[in-house]
Amino acid sequence: MKSFIEYSSDTDFPIENLPYGVFTSPSNEQKHIGVAIGEWILDLNVISHLFNGDLLRDQQHVFKDEKLNSFMGLKKAYWSEARATIQNLLDVNNQTLQNDSQLRERAFVKQSEAKMHLPADIGDYTDFYSSIHHATNVGIMFRSKENALMPNWKYIPVGYHGRSSSIIVSGTPIRRPYGQTLPVEGAEPHFGPCRLMDFELEMACFVGGPPTKLGERVTAKQAEEHIFGFALMNDWSARDIQKWEYVPLGPFTAKNLGTTISPWVVTVDALRPYIVENYPQDPPPFPYLKHEDNFNFDIKLEVDLISEKSPVVTTISRSNYRFLYWTVKQQLAQQTITGCNLNPGDLLGSGTISGDTSDSYGSMLELSWKGTKPLRLKSGEERKFLQDGDTVILRGFCVNENGVRIGFGNCAGKLLPAVPFE
Amino acid sequence: MKSFIEYSSDTDFPIENLPYGVFTSPSNEQKHIGVAIGEWILDLNVISHLFNGDLLRDQQHVFKDEKLNSFMGLKKAYWSEARATIQNLLDVNNQTLQNDSQLRERAFVKQSEAKMHLPADIGDYTDFYSSIHHATNVGIMFRSKENALMPNWKYIPVGYHGRSSSIIVSGTPIRRPYGQTLPVEGAEPHFGPCRLMDFELEMACFVGGPPTKLGERVTAKQAEEHIFGFALMNDWSARDIQKWEYVPLGPFTAKNLGTTISPWVVTVDALRPYIVENYPQDPPPFPYLKHEDNFNFDIKLEVDLISEKSPVVTTISRSNYRFLYWTVKQQLAQQTITGCNLNPGDLLGSGTISGDTSDSYGSMLELSWKGTKPLRLKSGEERKFLQDGDTVILRGFCVNENGVRIGFGNCAGKLLPAVPFE
Repeated sequence: MKSFIEYSSDTDFPIENLPYGVFTSPSNEQKHIGVAIGEWILDLNVISHLFNGDLLRDQQHVFKDEKLNSFMGLKKAYWSEARATIQNLLDVNNQTLQNDSQLRERAFVKQSEAKMHLPADIGDYTDFYSSIHHATNVGIMFRSKENALMPNWKYIPVGYHGRSSSIIVSGTPIRRPYGQTLPVEGAEPHFGPCRLMDFELEMACFVGGPPTKLGERVTAKQAEEHIFGFALMNDWSARDIQKWEYVPLGPFTAKNLGTTISPWVVTVDALRPYIVENYPQDPPPFPYLKHEDNFNFDIKLEVDLISEKSPVVTTISRSNYRFLYWTVKQQLAQQTITGCNLNPGDLLGSGTISGDTSDSYGSMLELSWKGTKPLRLKSGEERKFLQDGDTVILRGFCVNENGVRIGFGNCAGKLLPAVPFE
Repeated sequence: MKSFIEYSSDTDFPIENLPYGVFTSPSNEQKHIGVAIGEWILDLNVISHLFNGDLLRDQQHVFKDEKLNSFMGLKKAYWSEARATIQNLLDVNNQTLQNDSQLRERAFVKQSEAKMHLPADIGDYTDFYSSIHHATNVGIMFRSKENALMPNWKYIPVGYHGRSSSIIVSGTPIRRPYGQTLPVEGAEPHFGPCRLMDFELEMACFVGGPPTKLGERVTAKQAEEHIFGFALMNDWSARDIQKWEYVPLGPFTAKNLGTTISPWVVTVDALRPYIVENYPQDPPPFPYLKHEDNFNFDIKLEVDLISEKSPVVTTISRSNYRFLYWTVKQQLAQQTITGCNLNPGDLLGSGTISGDTSDSYGSMLELSWKGTKPLRLKSGEERKFLQDGDTVILRGFCVNENGVRIGFGNCAGKLLPAVPFE
């Protein structure tokens, strides 16, 4: 497959990818839906009239929206038709766009000149806890090696509801928060700036398909109809605040200070060539969590840290989406098992994705083992947790046996110092 | 104060109340914003042109919306002006509406003929855990008398994020869910219909005021600018599912099966005559949680249970909002302490409101003390937890020393049997 748009072989956005996003540009302040191709964005608002397939012919208006919810809310067959249409329009053998210089002028915007926004209105956001290595590491640190995994962990894709309002798009800075902590066990709590700021390497799944009704269940076998695509996610975490607040109702203010996602939503159709075997599950899951097909993905994940003192980039972790014990189909089945209704644009976070080696952990908490093993950056600095001015960049990409590479772009955020309390 | 609209002395909706809601009627399928007065609804969409005060003159469009978010998103002074305008228009001495028979005909709709909807789009929903008697009871049952309250409980208004999509308006039935439970400690979990269905007597606060920015804090002293009003809330709970799933990340599918709220939002201005002393707090709260004024309310709360087998109503609990240890100002300060942003229409649940006597507990879990003390209904039936066909109705009202009574209407829901798993 070859596009008339030229791009380098290591681009995140070849014609095989075609992720969706929402952008504005200097020449247009209205939000448009676009697709990334090489260093360009194809503006779907401008070419909505070209979606002339059987299904989308009467749904072209979804590409005129300022967010992806309506498009995500169509059925899966519509997403596939949209992908086929766009792939065809960008193909080197197709003249529709290629040879219409006027339309082409209007339809392509340089990514470097665009501002990206959240791809959808996120009605509800859930964060899961599905990496067995992460759950085990945290369990060992806070409980013991013998009790590392809670008794429910291998039966339930454990998750909790998060804060939608504080989800932000890559590039938005994050502020070190104030909060309560318990520096000395059994003593009085303390109020002040967070001392243990952390990132969490996650991926986020955008829910699609028509809304489900309250009381309706979606089993793992039915879940694919509701899985639109994926972005990278950094679930910033204030560890010391989390530790003091989270019993018994779970993390709250330690997480709602901000959650960063990458702007481009890579679809399941784009990820299909990178499907790998599911993580082996023992005990076997309950029937509502069972699906026979493989729905795990070989997505290589990297975390870069850049200190304010030096421009040198240190890759502090290399992990992979495939380390997840529970699939996103199982997560979605768990989300709805008691009848919780889904809306297009809802977000399901994977949980921190840690691998099985100490250089593949998905958080500073694990990488520095609770601060006991400081990381050395290439600049010579050391890190136990994040420091003010640190920029964290998550990256993700897939390469298959034919060398076809697709990527997720960046999920970046800089940690700003706390604003003193007056 | 007297209105030209006649109502009985025990109405929930005298001219001193004027709660806001959203309704449709047989003659109009579009959602309108209205105010309850006696047995009527005053349709604000129809009389939006009468909001001619200095502030609202240029904001009349908010009353044309299909939900309250835009009105809630105005500043507090606008809410007060709206209240004064409506109170004036309904006053027996004011002729504007009273003597305009054509407008009056269009502006009043019988509550019995209207269908109520959710009053606002609820962007984010948080549930707190602020009743000391409830937290103590649950602590005694699941831990021990000595460890009843967690160490953080008297320092932090403990709360967690809930699911917005599953919030429904009074009258919507609830389905008994399927889920995982652990019938025997240490044995294998079981999958099947919930056996311990419960209600939770709560009140919900609607957040108002302009949106805050991510990173911004709202202290308890500043919180009133963001407290629009209150509704009743039943946080349906699947206790057996909750017990198995909630460690370590908090309740999830045990709660997202549905949360019912009453349709009328009673404003802070209406509740002001019923302010009572705050619950005494020891240790004193951190400065961000401190406010000098009283912001606790004497709201009498009742829970009625009606079995499907008999129409006889049993009032199974009589509690009071004033039993809350943490004020809603403190809850809101906690919500934002690490910088979480607020939007108008966000909901803050109080947590189950239990009093200090066994007939004032706010859940079946406590009323039947984990099923060990069955309740006897007036029909002669017994209840440990809810049974299929049970209807739970929450009611709330205030009466002051002058005998002025305002109420919240009903928060009702019927429990339907589980749908078998295929």
